[in-house]
Amino acid sequence: MTQKPAVLIDPHFRRMEEIFSSADLRRLRELADVRWGRDEPMPLEQARRELTEAVAVVCSSWRYGDVLTHAGTPNLRAIIDVGGSFPVGLDYGRCFDRRIRVLTAAPAFGRQVAEMALAMALAATRDVAAGDRAMREGKERWLHAGNEGTFLLFGKRAGMIGYGSLARALRPLLGPFSCSLHVYDPWLAPGYLRSLGLEPLGLEALLETSDVIFVLSAPTIENRALLSRERLVRIRPSAVLVLMSRAYVVDFDALTEMVMAGRFKAAIDVFPREPLPLDHPIRRAPGAVLSAHRAGSVREGLWDIGRMVVDDLESIVLGLPPQQLQVAQPELVGRQVPGSAES
Amino acid sequence: MTQKPAVLIDPHFRRMEEIFSSADLRRLRELADVRWGRDEPMPLEQARRELTEAVAVVCSSWRYGDVLTHAGTPNLRAIIDVGGSFPVGLDYGRCFDRRIRVLTAAPAFGRQVAEMALAMALAATRDVAAGDRAMREGKERWLHAGNEGTFLLFGKRAGMIGYGSLARALRPLLGPFSCSLHVYDPWLAPGYLRSLGLEPLGLEALLETSDVIFVLSAPTIENRALLSRERLVRIRPSAVLVLMSRAYVVDFDALTEMVMAGRFKAAIDVFPREPLPLDHPIRRAPGAVLSAHRAGSVREGLWDIGRMVVDDLESIVLGLPPQQLQVAQPELVGRQVPGSAES
Amino acid sequence: MTQKPAVLIDPHFRRMEEIFSSADLRRLRELADVRWGRDEPMPLEQARRELTEAVAVVCSSWRYGDVLTHAGTPNLRAIIDVGGSFPVGLDYGRCFDRRIRVLTAAPAFGRQVAEMALAMALAATRDVAAGDRAMREGKERWLHAGNEGTFLLFGKRAGMIGYGSLARALRPLLGPFSCSLHVYDPWLAPGYLRSLGLEPLGLEALLETSDVIFVLSAPTIENRALLSRERLVRIRPSAVLVLMSRAYVVDFDALTEMVMAGRFKAAIDVFPREPLPLDHPIRRAPGAVLSAHRAGSVREGLWDIGRMVVDDLESIVLGLPPQQLQVAQPELVGRQVPGSAES
Amino acid sequence: MTQKPAVLIDPHFRRMEEIFSSADLRRLRELADVRWGRDEPMPLEQARRELTEAVAVVCSSWRYGDVLTHAGTPNLRAIIDVGGSFPVGLDYGRCFDRRIRVLTAAPAFGRQVAEMALAMALAATRDVAAGDRAMREGKERWLHAGNEGTFLLFGKRAGMIGYGSLARALRPLLGPFSCSLHVYDPWLAPGYLRSLGLEPLGLEALLETSDVIFVLSAPTIENRALLSRERLVRIRPSAVLVLMSRAYVVDFDALTEMVMAGRFKAAIDVFPREPLPLDHPIRRAPGAVLSAHRAGSVREGLWDIGRMVVDDLESIVLGLPPQQLQVAQPELVGRQVPGSAES
Repeated sequence: MTQKPAVLIDPHFRRMEEIFSSADLRRLRELADVRWGRDEPMPLEQARRELTEAVAVVCSSWRYGDVLTHAGTPNLRAIIDVGGSFPVGLDYGRCFDRRIRVLTAAPAFGRQVAEMALAMALAATRDVAAGDRAMREGKERWLHAGNEGTFLLFGKRAGMIGYGSLARALRPLLGPFSCSLHVYDPWLAPGYLRSLGLEPLGLEALLETSDVIFVLSAPTIENRALLSRERLVRIRPSAVLVLMSRAYVVDFDALTEMVMAGRFKAAIDVFPREPLPLDHPIRRAPGAVLSAHRAGSVREGLWDIGRMVVDDLESIVLGLPPQQLQVAQPELVGRQVPGSAES
Repeated sequence: MTQKPAVLIDPHFRRMEEIFSSADLRRLRELADVRWGRDEPMPLEQARRELTEAVAVVCSSWRYGDVLTHAGTPNLRAIIDVGGSFPVGLDYGRCFDRRIRVLTAAPAFGRQVAEMALAMALAATRDVAAGDRAMREGKERWLHAGNEGTFLLFGKRAGMIGYGSLARALRPLLGPFSCSLHVYDPWLAPGYLRSLGLEPLGLEALLETSDVIFVLSAPTIENRALLSRERLVRIRPSAVLVLMSRAYVVDFDALTEMVMAGRFKAAIDVFPREPLPLDHPIRRAPGAVLSAHRAGSVREGLWDIGRMVVDDLESIVLGLPPQQLQVAQPELVGRQVPGSAES
Repeated sequence: MTQKPAVLIDPHFRRMEEIFSSADLRRLRELADVRWGRDEPMPLEQARRELTEAVAVVCSSWRYGDVLTHAGTPNLRAIIDVGGSFPVGLDYGRCFDRRIRVLTAAPAFGRQVAEMALAMALAATRDVAAGDRAMREGKERWLHAGNEGTFLLFGKRAGMIGYGSLARALRPLLGPFSCSLHVYDPWLAPGYLRSLGLEPLGLEALLETSDVIFVLSAPTIENRALLSRERLVRIRPSAVLVLMSRAYVVDFDALTEMVMAGRFKAAIDVFPREPLPLDHPIRRAPGAVLSAHRAGSVREGLWDIGRMVVDDLESIVLGLPPQQLQVAQPELVGRQVPGSAES
Repeated sequence: MTQKPAVLIDPHFRRMEEIFSSADLRRLRELADVRWGRDEPMPLEQARRELTEAVAVVCSSWRYGDVLTHAGTPNLRAIIDVGGSFPVGLDYGRCFDRRIRVLTAAPAFGRQVAEMALAMALAATRDVAAGDRAMREGKERWLHAGNEGTFLLFGKRAGMIGYGSLARALRPLLGPFSCSLHVYDPWLAPGYLRSLGLEPLGLEALLETSDVIFVLSAPTIENRALLSRERLVRIRPSAVLVLMSRAYVVDFDALTEMVMAGRFKAAIDVFPREPLPLDHPIRRAPGAVLSAHRAGSVREGLWDIGRMVVDDLESIVLGLPPQQLQVAQPELVGRQVPGSAES
């Protein structure tokens, strides 16, 4: 009987049962000789010892220092981060030189964040949250009178800022609404976007013409406060901005002012400080739908992480390229801003 | 040049521009010699005179009395009700005898009600409305802690009570979520439902096994308070009931009690009395998402009525069967409970 | 225990096991008190006796004479023809007066005919049949050289003449090829076609602009030799005509001449005389793909008839409108040309 | 004005207008400073000079020798092969070390080969080619009699051997037929295949249970004559084998014998020797549908190559990872058997 390859499972800030369903845990143990596999962080010295044998490591950041020499990790084929972004402090160049795959489980959040993006978008376009609030305050307006300022998603122009794994998970949910889809993503060439049936658009044009704007881009060294005050003012009065990925990409003060002023509506799941200070004015904005960073942490949704990790470990153990998670690319890795998707 | 056929347009409780977009109004005038076509009700005597020439009448109820003799309405081919249900007080037997089509614009509400059904379902399953409320009260819980009791729609069991035009409009919106779809509809035979890829189910079994229950049935002489207390108790603790069609089909007192008690969640657009009394307890139920009968009265959505009416008038004027609106069927007409979809 | 309703099953020119799978036969016997149910025609006197009790009759033409009085057939709710078209010699007016549904199983041929239509279209556009012939004769041309005159279906203009049950079954098969779909059907109003995402077009324009033309219309009193010589000449040189429904709608001599002359290609399943005379010139046309009326008679495909018949009998027995088969409409019945889909 | 990056276009055995539509040629010239761009091969010394400046090279094999040092090709980011497979004679290790992307345009053949695969499969399952032949010989059988041995694709088990770009292009075409899809592909892990809605299966089981078997795998060092005599005998009598990728993966003598003997049917586009000898027995096999390697060389289809090449050059010029063509992966490159898809 052949020996199973060693895989170090050290998800630390995630818990084992949080990311692995029992079925996937069984698959994992069948596939690999699981080292560690506990909730608490593995003691560092022990981890470095295990890495001399491991074919792959599943972690929530890179905390093992400079072991990526051939002597330190002779068998290592893959580093899989389940925190939500690419790991910080890793020598990516050495990984590429040694053909070690660096993966992030970020795409595993796609389904649940996409569902929440649609839920929050519809809650704003159809005044579901505001209407519910009005009913509770006894101030509701019935029938047509209660639908001032609402609109249907059917056939509208949807703008996506960032077309990565969140956007790809969102797209099928928008399919039945026959929206025209416009994308601003400086990391994807226009011909490729067109081949997907999407219309590439400059950021200003997207803001000026979209009925619903989904902010889905991961943070990069280029997009801090990309949605500046100057750009936010371009948004149409009737539009809805849905902020799902990171507050980092928005001038949040400007956004707050404009939503407070009723310039447009916004559905917001991520904030510049979390928990958000209790006196933050956005908490009182009538045109906002607010969520406490809850899009990506539904219990059953987190099992998507484990499922995709085990799928890719299957590939890695077989000597094949991984297929499910996002692989670090030499062209992009220096431009991404690592850090947990949850912070 | 041939004369255009006369069509009486007397929508009374609807307004002309409410149901007809300007494009459809143009199509209508090109197609037919439009008689009346104003917001206020046509004087009765005048209407009865016009009916002696008209090929079709568009109305919001049948208020023209006993004119359906061959002498009274020799050219009449179609009676189209834009109120939301089949007209009351009409001699359907005579219509069938004379091959006069009786149509209701009810299916024209499908798109907008279906969108709202999904919006409200997601607002309940993902706690969008409750989460927004918590943020405003400064009582929100962040990340995982804020997702207790929430669940994803992906892959869940969705039960539909009634598979008419609302359900048919909802189905494609659920498509990307890969739910298994279970239907209780005593007016559709099981083989037909299966041919549509749906699983027919008894009402009790549907209530006991569904994660999300959509109540979409039009009122009939058989389904008053169909969802009785005895049946409502069968609903699973984690489930969400989405009441979209008519409060008529539910024991609303029992529903209120159970939602108040936290037995399950509910998203409710229709109520036994509208406006709902200010002291009705459902207004304070934490597990409810409430909407003031707003699902079917979005301005642009109502133009679906006019579009479908003109489409069917095209057919009728050409001597062809109508295709878009719902046609009264001899087997069912005596079992339906007419009355506006909005009351 | 309640008595099952009597249903007379007298498919005569069809055989029982030809149209009913064993599973559907079981469903049928569970549902109804099956009278007769044999391959040979029921003796007439006996049939007329059974009709005094039967709720429905399944036949392959109407051979029971004038029994449609209330006395002759007091319980009769439905007449279902499994031959392939609406029955000849039936008093449809009386059926409408008595609310008896007259149904044809024509839609049950949709799947298999649609599949064959696509198969034959692709065999022509990609020279599958001609290429195979060339290989057998040792005259093939390889690679690019062998693809002169071939084209891809992707993104092409497909024209449909007739948008009934065959076309509706074909449409999803064309879906992945992203063709633009143009329809000529004088029995469907343009607004309705547009609502289906189809572009209504005049016959001449359709012939002049389509890359692939599917002839799918059932015979009517208006469309004999609709595709006359004058119209066929409008077809583009590179185009493919796919004749699936009935040779009746084409000037077959003109078609033969043009295909012989290489004016365009044709895929033909139906002929003016069947069997086709051995010396008919179309048999030697290089640009033709020929099939001996085989589109609608695949063994397993015929079970679609039985499945849909039993589905509709379920509805009828429950007192509900049938949903699967095509129902005779008062507006159209006088304009259809009955007769077997297979003759 | 910034200078456009230099791109060497030297497709040699392809011609410029064969792969680039005029629209894509315009895009290309707008994007890059095109060097060479002619049908005949660029003189080698000149090519090596251009490579010292070029950001990318488009070629049909690697004929530039050992220039991949940093000095020889300081700007080079991508090598794009438009011949149909990964280039031979290239130092892939050095490419990976230098982060030079090596791409093959093989996926650009997907659409047209997939269409032909479906066309040939249906030609076999429905006897389109054989039926046409019979009509020409005056030996056809009409209606049911002519459908012995034919079957519908709807709901059948389709087996795919190899799930690369051809299979991915074929899959949507099979979608409307609701086949269950089974895959044998040793280069894709089972969990990943399941996540795509496919059922991974051992090769023997696939052969034994599939109604239609699509052979779509590119040649590797492991799959020569993978479909050996011992394996071919497992194919079910009623099944159809569709050989589209390379004769390399089949024991062609055994295949020929079995098809001659009527063991199963086969649709074959690729042969061990091309042109196929005139006396090869497969040319007379009644159960075969034969095509002279014509699946991938439809004129308009080849423009997919140019479109995807320019799309990826857009990415490369912008410093982004390519997205459209197939990228050489360190895990696999040593196991692939390069060589033109057309030889």
